[in-house]
Amino acid sequence: MHVVVLGVGRVGKAIVRDLAADGEFTVAAADASPEALQGAVTAGAVRTTRVDFADPSQIASLVAEQDLVVGAVPGPLGFRTLETVIRARKNVVDISFFEEDPFDLDELAKENGVTALVDCGVAPGLSNLLLGFAETTSDRVERFECYVGGLPIDRSSLFEYKATFSPIDVIAEYTRPARYVEGGAIMTGAALSQVEQIEVDGVGTLEAFLTDGLRTLTRTVGVPDMCEKTIRYPGHARQMELLRDMGLFSEEPIDVGGISVRPRDVAARLLFPLWRFEPGEPDLTVMRVMIRSASGGTENRSEYNLLDRYDAVTDTPSMARTTGYTCTAIVRLVASGKFTGRGVCPLEYVGREAGCFESVMTHLKTRGIELKESSSRTH
Amino acid sequence: MHVVVLGVGRVGKAIVRDLAADGEFTVAAADASPEALQGAVTAGAVRTTRVDFADPSQIASLVAEQDLVVGAVPGPLGFRTLETVIRARKNVVDISFFEEDPFDLDELAKENGVTALVDCGVAPGLSNLLLGFAETTSDRVERFECYVGGLPIDRSSLFEYKATFSPIDVIAEYTRPARYVEGGAIMTGAALSQVEQIEVDGVGTLEAFLTDGLRTLTRTVGVPDMCEKTIRYPGHARQMELLRDMGLFSEEPIDVGGISVRPRDVAARLLFPLWRFEPGEPDLTVMRVMIRSASGGTENRSEYNLLDRYDAVTDTPSMARTTGYTCTAIVRLVASGKFTGRGVCPLEYVGREAGCFESVMTHLKTRGIELKESSSRTH
Repeated sequence: MHVVVLGVGRVGKAIVRDLAADGEFTVAAADASPEALQGAVTAGAVRTTRVDFADPSQIASLVAEQDLVVGAVPGPLGFRTLETVIRARKNVVDISFFEEDPFDLDELAKENGVTALVDCGVAPGLSNLLLGFAETTSDRVERFECYVGGLPIDRSSLFEYKATFSPIDVIAEYTRPARYVEGGAIMTGAALSQVEQIEVDGVGTLEAFLTDGLRTLTRTVGVPDMCEKTIRYPGHARQMELLRDMGLFSEEPIDVGGISVRPRDVAARLLFPLWRFEPGEPDLTVMRVMIRSASGGTENRSEYNLLDRYDAVTDTPSMARTTGYTCTAIVRLVASGKFTGRGVCPLEYVGREAGCFESVMTHLKTRGIELKESSSRTH
Repeated sequence: MHVVVLGVGRVGKAIVRDLAADGEFTVAAADASPEALQGAVTAGAVRTTRVDFADPSQIASLVAEQDLVVGAVPGPLGFRTLETVIRARKNVVDISFFEEDPFDLDELAKENGVTALVDCGVAPGLSNLLLGFAETTSDRVERFECYVGGLPIDRSSLFEYKATFSPIDVIAEYTRPARYVEGGAIMTGAALSQVEQIEVDGVGTLEAFLTDGLRTLTRTVGVPDMCEKTIRYPGHARQMELLRDMGLFSEEPIDVGGISVRPRDVAARLLFPLWRFEPGEPDLTVMRVMIRSASGGTENRSEYNLLDRYDAVTDTPSMARTTGYTCTAIVRLVASGKFTGRGVCPLEYVGREAGCFESVMTHLKTRGIELKESSSRTH
């Protein structure tokens, strides 16, 4: 089976390596950057192609000869790239985390008989899978809480933070009003608010705060209480709140001695060097998902904990491992015909299909990523 | 006696009102701004003159007919203005708090037979007076610690701070390496470092951190241990440190999308509206000076506490009261011939002259500003 990975940044590279490892797939890598392409061929026979993702015709001709497509382009290019692939009638597994609503492409995907899996990372991604699975194993899910974050292991840097994905996306995440669901109603809170401390085995005390991460869940599941929170080392939310509230993340231009400048561009310019991981610098990924469900008169509380670290052997960041291997798990579900949905499908749909949850868990475990579950029941 | 006040901003205005109150002086007010001049004539008969302080010839002709000059111009214009007044052979009492070394004008002042009192505010100012006085009342002063700050009484604003003087000077204060004296050696620490909490009766818990405020004391007194710290509400130092350390207070231009901009200018533009006192908004001034001295075998520890608040009756900020009335106390010392030093004289020199300390204390007490002293002796 022929698979092309569109975009071979840190995550795309891990996806290519993983898909090319066992010979099941003939893997092609496409990117605008020759350096990125060179980095992606370190493992096995991988065909590389330079592609300008801003040009749909280049994408269309590239995917024409493929059986399956992985979308891992930068966020701002994600939606249009996905649309192009769907129009080319190719099944696609996407992790590009674009801002647009993926369901705007649902009808198109169904018309084209395409399976378009979106938000196939950790959260959104694995977290959605867990919720979809919980829906099938209970009468009703009453509460869903997802805590997730990527962090540097070394805490000595300013802000005790480095960005495992685009820093400009991090600033957007700290600024965008955050939706959560309470008593069945969609509420909106300020990003960085509702700060709480959490204890994570092997890491210590962390903090979690509201961000706008529910995405597809606000319309795909009927769970009356849901929130997504971002995890950082303690103190980070208050620091970022200060920068935001003093106006430094504003996109409104200000006049500085006759020069018009957007504060957010200045913030980005100053923060990017501070938030950049050193080559080979270890990161960690932590996710905690708490689900409360009911079956008959029994209430069930499940907590899933994921803790993953940088892989020094292959120089793969934990963020690329957890995101990339979730993505390759989904690729295999589609390739093997285990998941057969049509249209735009976030991972809560995958979690609902028999056997899919277990397949993803096994896939991840093989790659050293374990999701520890603990649960309690009240009868 | 004819006195002219150069610069009638908030402090200059309070000085004019105080000097004009009892008929001892014929007071003139000079400023570049007609609005400032208008604000300065609210009390009594005051002659006003528009002056461009950047033009020494205008200053020279203005002071020619005066017996005494008060310098209260913006900091950047302070040194040159003082030089112009000294060249005009006029005694001068200055509070303009300029960055240059005032002793560079000492020889000129002596040649011209002029008394030039500099840094005549709270700290530097009153604090120096206390130290000079302590030198005359002990065998030796062993330690001098000065804590001082101006704060809004309402703490609800971001950073729990507003600037009682120019915000750009505040940023400079948070950036400039801070000198302190330890074991007789001049040391340098980062501004905003050495944070400690202090309890102030009537205000609560505050914090104090190192700033570069010793100024003339590093050369005028032989005290082996000295430091100056700035007082704020708790947490402020860490916040400002973050802004500074992320590069936001840097004066080095950065490229932002092809535009060259100095981060400090952006910071100033964002912080100024946040740090501006509302009209009639109450402020407070707090100063604590701790002096350890020895006489014979006796060790003496004195602590002086000053706490002053906005005067609603005359709409005078505490900062203008404490700075302005210290200045007018010194004006009266010079006018009455009680202080007779020649050359550039900071207030530690005034504190050493018999009767001067007591005169200043009485003057301040009459205006509702009390310095509470507590001391302990070990024999």
